[in-house]
Amino acid sequence: MKKFVYADNAATTKVSEKVLSSMLPFYTEGFGNASSIYALGRSAQASIEKAREQVANGIGCEAKEVYFTSGGSESDNWAVKSVAKNLAKRGKNHIITTVFEHHAILHTCQALEKEGFEVTYIPIDDKGYVNPCDIENAITDKTALVTVMFANNEIGTIQPIAEIGRICREKKVLFHTDAVQAIGNVAINVKEMGIDMLSLSGHKIHAPKGIGALYVRKGIILNNLIHGGGQEKGKRAGTENVPSIVGLGIAVEEACNIDNINAKASKLTPMRDRIISELLKLPKTRLNGGTENRLCGNVNISFEGVEGESLLLFLDNMGICASSGSACTSGDLDPSHVLLALGLKHEVAHGSLRISLADDASEEDVDYIIECVPKAISTLRAMSPLWERIVKGE
Amino acid sequence: MKKFVYADNAATTKVSEKVLSSMLPFYTEGFGNASSIYALGRSAQASIEKAREQVANGIGCEAKEVYFTSGGSESDNWAVKSVAKNLAKRGKNHIITTVFEHHAILHTCQALEKEGFEVTYIPIDDKGYVNPCDIENAITDKTALVTVMFANNEIGTIQPIAEIGRICREKKVLFHTDAVQAIGNVAINVKEMGIDMLSLSGHKIHAPKGIGALYVRKGIILNNLIHGGGQEKGKRAGTENVPSIVGLGIAVEEACNIDNINAKASKLTPMRDRIISELLKLPKTRLNGGTENRLCGNVNISFEGVEGESLLLFLDNMGICASSGSACTSGDLDPSHVLLALGLKHEVAHGSLRISLADDASEEDVDYIIECVPKAISTLRAMSPLWERIVKGE
Repeated sequence: MKKFVYADNAATTKVSEKVLSSMLPFYTEGFGNASSIYALGRSAQASIEKAREQVANGIGCEAKEVYFTSGGSESDNWAVKSVAKNLAKRGKNHIITTVFEHHAILHTCQALEKEGFEVTYIPIDDKGYVNPCDIENAITDKTALVTVMFANNEIGTIQPIAEIGRICREKKVLFHTDAVQAIGNVAINVKEMGIDMLSLSGHKIHAPKGIGALYVRKGIILNNLIHGGGQEKGKRAGTENVPSIVGLGIAVEEACNIDNINAKASKLTPMRDRIISELLKLPKTRLNGGTENRLCGNVNISFEGVEGESLLLFLDNMGICASSGSACTSGDLDPSHVLLALGLKHEVAHGSLRISLADDASEEDVDYIIECVPKAISTLRAMSPLWERIVKGE
Repeated sequence: MKKFVYADNAATTKVSEKVLSSMLPFYTEGFGNASSIYALGRSAQASIEKAREQVANGIGCEAKEVYFTSGGSESDNWAVKSVAKNLAKRGKNHIITTVFEHHAILHTCQALEKEGFEVTYIPIDDKGYVNPCDIENAITDKTALVTVMFANNEIGTIQPIAEIGRICREKKVLFHTDAVQAIGNVAINVKEMGIDMLSLSGHKIHAPKGIGALYVRKGIILNNLIHGGGQEKGKRAGTENVPSIVGLGIAVEEACNIDNINAKASKLTPMRDRIISELLKLPKTRLNGGTENRLCGNVNISFEGVEGESLLLFLDNMGICASSGSACTSGDLDPSHVLLALGLKHEVAHGSLRISLADDASEEDVDYIIECVPKAISTLRAMSPLWERIVKGE
């Protein structure tokens, strides 16, 4: 039987049995509208508040600082647009971000630029890290917000968030982080790290798609992205997605448990490193992103003379799900903006493979990946006129 | 055993077994990211496109005119804000809506007023209907958009949407309708009715909470409300909520099937009318909203000398879930803006009860409602000093 290895957990994860079973009662039994005052509604509301506590405990904030959204993209849009619109009234129309953010941040910033905001895009070094000094130097008295992702979704590099938080606090600038990829991999404490706003998403941590949260430190004025009913203290309209919120609560509790984080790191780091070292044995390869402060399940390697999409389809045929760049940009023929930001040439960036393991990965999965990827690379290179030229050193 | 009657289907509905079973495989098996190019992702994408066809068939548009959102509120916000921002560039900064819209429309319009837009709020008559002539007369050469709800969520009155659509088409003004309550009760054909944009929500038609759709006629320029990845043709970022989208497709197919609509009307209309006529036998009561062109499951009655919230808790105690005004405004101490728009006095609006039946209602449910509500009313009135004054004619 053909083996099946799902190695694209940075794109999305399987919903865990524990999460799913927590959700199911809310579809057909406890299906009340959480804003209704009868028992069926009140119990839905109580379940939401329990999930809010779970999320708050997971990231070290108060429950009232957590707002549920439809996912990471909405959280990112909401955070950045709300701060931008509010602080622009006080003459602060400058935003600092980085060149390798998720598109939910980058495209939001670009939209704000069209409305007259000024945005500074901080570069990354060739290992995929932001230098906090660059952030510090970019802050002016017009700066409303710094937004830097906690861990990159493509190359897995974990950023010096606490250091950036300290700088922002000193300079009295708001600091938002997209922690969608970091959560469950790094112990996060928003208070200790000086984080004012944080986005997270359910479907990267075994909760369902279509649910996320935004932490907003109390005292920050929050404008609605979605106006309407009085849900989420009037800040985010729309009937609460009770089953998914309950699932998110459970998933964050599991993901942020420090023992689970440590166990995951202990298990996945050697697996990741084994894949990296095996694949780097192939000629004309490079690891994208540094090895220190890297997500324990993330591998990102470029293979010269290989076209990423062909590689993925080849691996798919062998039962391996992996990706090249982020899933959110598939259909996009441009190479990954993250890999270009590392300094890769277009053609090298195009031949990249991201493998992202979840806590359920097995040594057999790793063996299979190590067996299949080199086969796929050799076959594709053998067919590639580009590879021939590379080998000849043309 | 205490009977349990869920009579608040305008607030939310139970997810149907058919919908739930269509969703379940996508949590733990077909959980791929729909933007991924391997088979697991492509099959998720295919399931989304099938659901898009189902929604399109349900409302008479093309699949490519359907965008999935996190629900009715997001759809409403997106439609109105996108048109407003786009047409303002051409000097069109006037929006026409009505006084009794859902808050997702009203609060969006109020937010736009703060940004300099001009909004006309068309009144309703004492039966709860909008007069299309009022819309026509309000249109100026600055008008960007008319947005009128298809059926009101509190009093169930169905508006002359096709007539308003004809006027908007003649006047070359875009026409949006919030059809969240109408869908499944009225046969909707956006092309025949001259509707340019339409919002719908899953959880009112036995799909889950947290999913909805926006129909946008092709040719209309659509701005993102949520920027980011390339999902939904780049117009609505965020990893697609595959299970809920699949469930929404099934739910719209069921809800918009004309035989189902007719069967529901044949079954519920007499039930609704029986409840209305029985409850109106009580003294000092009034039906809110007209009886012609009224949602077949909607009853909304005011009882003088009764406080709505006490009535709901009393009924809850008897096992009946019902509401007073809309669930989205619970916690709000103001009386319903819809009932005030009908001309009710504050104290009368406060003593209102909305009963909303779904297609699974039984005659026994109706019997039980007819048995319990009068009991609740007599008990509450007997305790009310206000009622004493009303009886004395003070």
